[in-house]
Amino acid sequence: MAQEIEEKVIEAKKASIILASVNTGTKNAALEAMAQALDDNRDQILAANQKDVETAEKLKRKGELSQALVDRLKVSDSKISGMIDGIRDVIELKDPVGETIAALELDQGLELFQVSSPIGLIGVIFESRPDVVPQVMSLCLKSGNATIFKGGSEALNSNRVIFDLLKEAAESVKGMPAGAFQLMETREEVNDILSMDAYIDLLIPRGSNAFVKYMQDNTKIPVLGHADGICHVYVDEDADLTKAYDVCFDSKVQYPAVCNAMETLLVHEKVAEKFLPTMAKRFDEAGVEMRCDEQSYSILEMIDFLKSILRATEEDWSTEYNDLILSIKIVESMEEAIEHINTYGSHHTDAIITENKFKKKDFTDLVDSSSVMINASTRFADGFRYGKGAEVGISTNKIHARGPVGMEGLLIYKYVLVGDGERVADYAGPEARKFTHRKINRKASDVLDTTLE
Amino acid sequence: MAQEIEEKVIEAKKASIILASVNTGTKNAALEAMAQALDDNRDQILAANQKDVETAEKLKRKGELSQALVDRLKVSDSKISGMIDGIRDVIELKDPVGETIAALELDQGLELFQVSSPIGLIGVIFESRPDVVPQVMSLCLKSGNATIFKGGSEALNSNRVIFDLLKEAAESVKGMPAGAFQLMETREEVNDILSMDAYIDLLIPRGSNAFVKYMQDNTKIPVLGHADGICHVYVDEDADLTKAYDVCFDSKVQYPAVCNAMETLLVHEKVAEKFLPTMAKRFDEAGVEMRCDEQSYSILEMIDFLKSILRATEEDWSTEYNDLILSIKIVESMEEAIEHINTYGSHHTDAIITENKFKKKDFTDLVDSSSVMINASTRFADGFRYGKGAEVGISTNKIHARGPVGMEGLLIYKYVLVGDGERVADYAGPEARKFTHRKINRKASDVLDTTLE
Repeated sequence: MAQEIEEKVIEAKKASIILASVNTGTKNAALEAMAQALDDNRDQILAANQKDVETAEKLKRKGELSQALVDRLKVSDSKISGMIDGIRDVIELKDPVGETIAALELDQGLELFQVSSPIGLIGVIFESRPDVVPQVMSLCLKSGNATIFKGGSEALNSNRVIFDLLKEAAESVKGMPAGAFQLMETREEVNDILSMDAYIDLLIPRGSNAFVKYMQDNTKIPVLGHADGICHVYVDEDADLTKAYDVCFDSKVQYPAVCNAMETLLVHEKVAEKFLPTMAKRFDEAGVEMRCDEQSYSILEMIDFLKSILRATEEDWSTEYNDLILSIKIVESMEEAIEHINTYGSHHTDAIITENKFKKKDFTDLVDSSSVMINASTRFADGFRYGKGAEVGISTNKIHARGPVGMEGLLIYKYVLVGDGERVADYAGPEARKFTHRKINRKASDVLDTTLE
Repeated sequence: MAQEIEEKVIEAKKASIILASVNTGTKNAALEAMAQALDDNRDQILAANQKDVETAEKLKRKGELSQALVDRLKVSDSKISGMIDGIRDVIELKDPVGETIAALELDQGLELFQVSSPIGLIGVIFESRPDVVPQVMSLCLKSGNATIFKGGSEALNSNRVIFDLLKEAAESVKGMPAGAFQLMETREEVNDILSMDAYIDLLIPRGSNAFVKYMQDNTKIPVLGHADGICHVYVDEDADLTKAYDVCFDSKVQYPAVCNAMETLLVHEKVAEKFLPTMAKRFDEAGVEMRCDEQSYSILEMIDFLKSILRATEEDWSTEYNDLILSIKIVESMEEAIEHINTYGSHHTDAIITENKFKKKDFTDLVDSSSVMINASTRFADGFRYGKGAEVGISTNKIHARGPVGMEGLLIYKYVLVGDGERVADYAGPEARKFTHRKINRKASDVLDTTLE
């Protein structure tokens, strides 16, 4: 591993300890300085981005980059304004560090506090979207976490200018540590980062499924995120079909390129003949290709005007299309639908359309997914819509953070025990003192805060 | 991988979905049946354990097993009573599954609930202590998690009998799924378990540091626990020395073989000459070997009656003795102590002895450990003493769960969005409806509970 890389990471790790204890006012001043720096240097950002876009256009003409990627790379004046607004939104968020989560008297004069704290050093690896840097840096700074960034090579110039402006602005504020934020630039450095489990506490990937999967498979550092997003809507025999049409259409068509869009529609056999033809007509008009199991195919093949009715293969059930393609399967029962979802799905977001309250409960209990929707579109599974203000990512992990994750996913806690010379020996043996274990209405800051003095 | 093993794990994974939705009454009935089964079959347990102990005694005579290990292996009638009491204690714990953690109205009629849920399938790998099985199985059952157990080969007969009794009892209760608990018996199966990241959501190791480290290094499954426990007490220049003597003595001597015992004592240079001789005398009387840095050595070498004053080497600062051995270092400032702790420690538990409230706060903020003790013994860092009722383990992880972990470490959550046909399309574009994002005082069970009908 390049020594320079390791030095950068160690510098960030050391700075993370200081950053963890920086007070709210200082952090907000740093954020405001960052916003101001972007606002004051729009031309510099646009010029650097222009270089990246020109290179990308050339690669596109050679067929090495897609138009979508070039589009995501482009920074406009209004995108810069968006970055600035995003940073100022984070200033408004409550400082999540140092909150007393629980307080317990162990014995008279011996008080235990569980206090929220930053995780430490976060690694963020992203593909070519320069707006990730201000967004993630502001969330990490506010939550007291140092951060290593590694962006896509296509956005090299844009990332460098934006990162340097933000870092310089943040560090210019008195009380902010130097070196808490670091930018890595070469592709080899990704593997260096993945190997640094001794220093990096959490990785957040922002990119394609393959990219996330690669990270998950090549590091011992916990990865917060999801690879696939294979989401289902199950239309139950007790569904209100009006709701079913709306929710299914929205789940598939409103924005098909994203992880929370529906990939497979499951329909109870008792309503299939009524529901499917009308639903298929709406999908057909929106240009959705439908890949059907035997039974749904036999229902839809008789409808002349449908343009794209194909037969599904086994592979379709585990494919995330991210496109106007939908697999359709008819099931005999809700249990079969749940079994299908738990087997082929990605534990991301799945919906049921039913008016039956027993089924609402059973579906919720038995579908092993981060978000379960009852009579609502899968597309609602998103940090902004869930009211988190800013989204760190959507996690299909079963520990730490699951589903859409906001700033709370960047926090852990530490226990602080405040005593007066207490010994465990006094609580052991035949004459042992008893613990009181009494919940107390105190905060760690009542004992530890010194800001007023 | 042996097919039989994979089948067992898949069976447990499937059962985990059912177990997640089993109601509290059924779970408590299963726990009571488990307690009763142990009580009814004491002779069978003792006979099986006798076989294991006999084999272990033979190995001990050959020098292949330690007496400590043989002792830990032994099950007595009173140990069985302890297991039974432990299970009944878990019956008394509140069912942590299905709790509404947060509730938010996204819009009128569109309500989002964050609901606690089991993690899924837990793998527990432990060395030769048969009482781990009832303890962990009861915690996992109450929290709705399926579990794969792998015990040490020395306890093969004991584990098998206890496991079979518990499993049969639990599954005899109506509503409990079959196959949620599985026992693996051969050493090769450990590596099989470590490779099953597709099914197993969390690993809990119970054993030596080397054992935990091996697991952490050889699996992609998150491991909840800690390898080393290198804990420090820092005696500040503003310490009340009476408290310092008591806390330091307790931290080292009360039970030196455990992870939360002190390994290194750091002393501010301004109090070292006063504090160290008296402290060393107490340690010396208790048989503690002291490994001193240059400065502390020069203070203590002049005291004739001290029996074991040695010079520390660099290696001592990162060694967990788990024995009556202590390394001692004199520091120029609290900052140097913190730097030492963050560099050589294991982020487990560290203490400061000081009367200075600014230092209390700074030490708490800047020491990157799961538990920070102010004027209290490191030995308090323990699930029972922290009032958790039952301890899953002590974690030095920076995500999910940190410090002493109780049943809460076996839980995650899912989001449940309850709507009435809502589409994201209505919340997008120029005519977009606005989200209300209003906190509501409702529970998921208000919407989904059907138990009264």
